[in-house]
Amino acid sequence: MAERYTLHEDPRSGNCFKIALTAALLGLPLERRQYDIMAGETRTEEFLARVNSNGRIPVLQIDCEDGSTRFLPESNAACWYLADGSALIPDDRFERADMLRWMFFEQYSHEPNVATLRFWLRFVGKDKLSDHQRAQLMPKHLAGEEALRVMNGHLATRDWFVGNSITLADIALYPYTSAAAEGGFDLSSCDAIRAWIERVEASKGAIAFD
Amino acid sequence: MAERYTLHEDPRSGNCFKIALTAALLGLPLERRQYDIMAGETRTEEFLARVNSNGRIPVLQIDCEDGSTRFLPESNAACWYLADGSALIPDDRFERADMLRWMFFEQYSHEPNVATLRFWLRFVGKDKLSDHQRAQLMPKHLAGEEALRVMNGHLATRDWFVGNSITLADIALYPYTSAAAEGGFDLSSCDAIRAWIERVEASKGAIAFD
Repeated sequence: MAERYTLHEDPRSGNCFKIALTAALLGLPLERRQYDIMAGETRTEEFLARVNSNGRIPVLQIDCEDGSTRFLPESNAACWYLADGSALIPDDRFERADMLRWMFFEQYSHEPNVATLRFWLRFVGKDKLSDHQRAQLMPKHLAGEEALRVMNGHLATRDWFVGNSITLADIALYPYTSAAAEGGFDLSSCDAIRAWIERVEASKGAIAFD
Repeated sequence: MAERYTLHEDPRSGNCFKIALTAALLGLPLERRQYDIMAGETRTEEFLARVNSNGRIPVLQIDCEDGSTRFLPESNAACWYLADGSALIPDDRFERADMLRWMFFEQYSHEPNVATLRFWLRFVGKDKLSDHQRAQLMPKHLAGEEALRVMNGHLATRDWFVGNSITLADIALYPYTSAAAEGGFDLSSCDAIRAWIERVEASKGAIAFD
């Protein structure tokens, strides 16, 4: 019996979606178990005891061939696990590290700005934000625009973030970039990003984030 | 002639230090070129044109055997590049992904809180913070404490973050954790973390962060 994979996710989360996209591009079966994070469904006793004691998703559950079960949090680490040994991770040593460079950029400079503003504006609602959150709207908007500017500049002369084909760097950066308008970001002047989004979505096996 | 490595760094930065520690543990020669980020030395025309157009450090410069030069930003990606193929990255597929899980945790949940407060309180100075920064002191303190709590719980039953020996996960988490007191964090009740810091510093070839 082969290893089996279950994604514990909220389908509104781009971090969760990355893992589903990785599995789709690899043609791997993936069971998707859905939770509503805003209703506290990842804070139940059972979830905390069994899946993730931090109450965070995504978590990739791996049911191994030997009957054991493992849980892997952190979206980009789960993508790596699924893709290890596949063409989604470059063979070349520099390209492999350069792919990780863009995945760390995503979690440090992109997600806390582009994804957080989408979450606050689309799902929480601007009138329900705390004063502390409201004070962060403009700094996060500027930092998110800077991340998008860096991406657009990089993609101006290339089809993919690293090498000549889609890798985990593209997968990590795709969901929240494609949904950036929901966080108040305007991609109309980012021609290179828009063309890249189309390339990602046209990849064999790809599923779209919405 | 073998590949040569140059680290563009500010020695006060734990992100820079990780790369130096990785090289030290591997016994790799590393030239260290130092900049004062607070004096704008990574914003000069030459730095922006040649090393990193974002003006950020660390950047690992790789002078390849074929005479070409490459630049790799993002501390954890640079550590990966140096350690690729060594015992600092586990051979086991799950452990390798689990190591990355802690490295992403470090950049997402630890560094923006534990390192940022150290930078603000030790180097900028509390009286020189902007109103926006001042409003983030308490949220960042609480989030940093939560990250340290997760680490201490994980280390309660093990010597290293992943597997049975030091990996890049330990290297990534070490510098800002060892300097957490400078950001106002109290490790006196974190016995497991303090014992782990001693283990990291006692590793063969290790250098200490200060």
